[in-house]
Amino acid sequence: MELDYVFWELERSRQERISELVELLSIESVSTAPEKREEVRKAGLWLSEKLARMGFEVGLLETPGHPVLLASHCKRKGKPTVLIYGHFDVQPTDPEEEWVSPPFVPQVRDGCVYARGASDDKGQLLTHVHAVEAILKRSGELPLNVKFLLEGEEEIGSPSLPTLLEERKGDLAADCVVISDGCQFRSGIPAITYGLRGLAYVEIEVEGPKLDLHSGSYGGLVENPINALCSMLARLKTPEGKVAIPGFYDDVIPLEPWERQEIKELPFDEEGVKEYLGVEWLVGESEFTPLERRWARPTLDVNGIWGGFSGKGAKTVIPARAGAKVSMRLVPRQVPSRVCALLEAYLQEMKPRGVRIKVRAINGADPVIIDRKLPQIQAAFKAIERGFGRPPVFIREGGSIPVVNMLKNYLGIEAILLLGWGSPEDGAHSPNERFSLEDFHRGTKTSVALLYELAR
Amino acid sequence: MELDYVFWELERSRQERISELVELLSIESVSTAPEKREEVRKAGLWLSEKLARMGFEVGLLETPGHPVLLASHCKRKGKPTVLIYGHFDVQPTDPEEEWVSPPFVPQVRDGCVYARGASDDKGQLLTHVHAVEAILKRSGELPLNVKFLLEGEEEIGSPSLPTLLEERKGDLAADCVVISDGCQFRSGIPAITYGLRGLAYVEIEVEGPKLDLHSGSYGGLVENPINALCSMLARLKTPEGKVAIPGFYDDVIPLEPWERQEIKELPFDEEGVKEYLGVEWLVGESEFTPLERRWARPTLDVNGIWGGFSGKGAKTVIPARAGAKVSMRLVPRQVPSRVCALLEAYLQEMKPRGVRIKVRAINGADPVIIDRKLPQIQAAFKAIERGFGRPPVFIREGGSIPVVNMLKNYLGIEAILLLGWGSPEDGAHSPNERFSLEDFHRGTKTSVALLYELAR
Repeated sequence: MELDYVFWELERSRQERISELVELLSIESVSTAPEKREEVRKAGLWLSEKLARMGFEVGLLETPGHPVLLASHCKRKGKPTVLIYGHFDVQPTDPEEEWVSPPFVPQVRDGCVYARGASDDKGQLLTHVHAVEAILKRSGELPLNVKFLLEGEEEIGSPSLPTLLEERKGDLAADCVVISDGCQFRSGIPAITYGLRGLAYVEIEVEGPKLDLHSGSYGGLVENPINALCSMLARLKTPEGKVAIPGFYDDVIPLEPWERQEIKELPFDEEGVKEYLGVEWLVGESEFTPLERRWARPTLDVNGIWGGFSGKGAKTVIPARAGAKVSMRLVPRQVPSRVCALLEAYLQEMKPRGVRIKVRAINGADPVIIDRKLPQIQAAFKAIERGFGRPPVFIREGGSIPVVNMLKNYLGIEAILLLGWGSPEDGAHSPNERFSLEDFHRGTKTSVALLYELAR
Repeated sequence: MELDYVFWELERSRQERISELVELLSIESVSTAPEKREEVRKAGLWLSEKLARMGFEVGLLETPGHPVLLASHCKRKGKPTVLIYGHFDVQPTDPEEEWVSPPFVPQVRDGCVYARGASDDKGQLLTHVHAVEAILKRSGELPLNVKFLLEGEEEIGSPSLPTLLEERKGDLAADCVVISDGCQFRSGIPAITYGLRGLAYVEIEVEGPKLDLHSGSYGGLVENPINALCSMLARLKTPEGKVAIPGFYDDVIPLEPWERQEIKELPFDEEGVKEYLGVEWLVGESEFTPLERRWARPTLDVNGIWGGFSGKGAKTVIPARAGAKVSMRLVPRQVPSRVCALLEAYLQEMKPRGVRIKVRAINGADPVIIDRKLPQIQAAFKAIERGFGRPPVFIREGGSIPVVNMLKNYLGIEAILLLGWGSPEDGAHSPNERFSLEDFHRGTKTSVALLYELAR
């Protein structure tokens, strides 16, 4: 059958494809570094030319920041359209001295290619480009319509993407999105990520006296903004790890027994995690397992706090103000704005006499859950079975992926396939980032199988 | 009688004495500014020469920092010895642009002299020099033995003083110490300060995971050091303003009914204080008045806190560590080291699983209470009645005065007379510092009367 021919083509072209990966990884496309601006563009151009040679209609679009590449190969009327997202920018490389080989001189060792961007995301996005190329080479046409959206600003938060999605909504219309910018559950256990926690991030400021005071003269007379802040923050969680904001859990959809069972069956190395973190205990809601707590339970963390004197020695000050950054991880169907409002109301209720507080929402992301009954999920399942030689597990992720929310919200696409070919040991943002050539190959095969499955 | 002759001499020399004050205030003796080093010495020299001309044995002693002036006039065997402490260094002058007249070009306006150091402490220390001078001029001898200890490092924490007190213990032996480096209760209501709160100042560090973590991946799984810190700090005080450390109040001597009555009779402008501070409420132990809480009740304040991200925007980090500075104001007979140990034990008991804590004592000062039945206190009472034309009130102070503890501990002198001639409106560390010439004059008269009273 056709698929086998294409797989054979992939075997044949293995060395060429690795050479192309090495070429792309040699481009120093660090998006946060102003002096690498031209390098980011160069990576975009490299991909534009590649896709153009493959017969795609290609546009490298200017933005206030780095360019975005849009490419489409839509010659199959009546067939579905898939939008493949990826990014060709990379993280900075510091600390440079910890790299065994230079970050932009890719080196193959022990079956892996070592370079910045190897796994995140150049190696992963290239699997889809190569999959399309191999199909075209073998059959002259694609089984469905394919669009690529490849950006150069992911590592700096995709600032230009919302405007572009808004303006190019029509060009980007698709039935399903594929994103390979993450990991398998662990190396050799491929996964479909079907849930992401959301985020509500606020800044709290507590104001007390209008000037800094001497704690000798005023200690015991005025409310100290730091003490007040701590007393409020302490009451945001119970000692058992529950969020104590009234109404916080109202919109939480409880985990289904089947889902809990499924998560329970995944291996989780608690001792290994504790050793990696250097902590004696994992904490949190004891009626849930660590993976449930990471993926499917909302939580709250103070991400930063400040106030008064933090220099060396002693200064006996009661400061005029203090502040903190607090974030809440959300699960379906919690709504960031509603959760922020509940937090603010609770803070106002707890606020001790003698201080004023200001709460400002900084950032929010809706939690994401992708319906596992969608036919595209079934397609991905089968494709992974073919590409990796074993069925995937279903996982969620504790963080949010901003681009997922953007694609959902601006393009209205519900079927988002989060298929990571990387491994948690790839060191995505660390020195000696790598990508297993085996995963590079398995990912490419899976992408081929996926395009055929999605075409049905 | 003799005293009246000396008072008459003071009247006669009024203008000369103001001129001398202006001269001393013109010296830019900012002890914290390296470029003013010679100016600090110049102020010490000015006073050395003045006291030498008056017949004192004088030594301007070198230290690793600024010099200390020791002077003695001990010709009355069998009579008591009084040690007068003061400092000739001053605070910096910034913000310079807020001064109506330049800080080191003293100007007399509205009955006050305006200059840096006018009240703190050049003007006040000079009252004692002038008092001695006037007595010597009128009667040729002093009624008792007088020593001066005048330093040039008070505004930077008297770093050289302990060593000097240790080394010159014999030279500094005295029956009583007089310090005029503070305020009347309010302008026109002179006071004897008979109590100071002590201090125990600690730094707390909370350590969690050995690296900063992403709150998406680990939120809900690991103890967050900031949350842990806040939960502990929140439990150091009750909502009613009591310190919640077990055993904290064990050594506190309760206020006597007569003392509470006395404090109650002092005017305290609560509305004025609230307006000055810009707060709606004064807080604290409701069974005590604000003045009792300031002067005679122990308390606890967080003076600084830090951890995680405090920049602009959002960073979803669970930091590896967080810390705080916490100080406790103490009253007789609380002991700083014992209170620190109680705090540490309580923190260790409260510490949530998954974090470690370190507590480090940074600074301590014993609370001070001066026995009001001492004959020297009675002498000061009578002297103030003569000098100010009204009896003093007895007050305490909420802060500690490090030099008082040093003099007590190194010289073993219990009778320490804290007699401030300044007023709370003098702006001691602020722009447009001033000293009322009326207070300058009344202080000098009081000093004369005090020397005669102490001689009895």
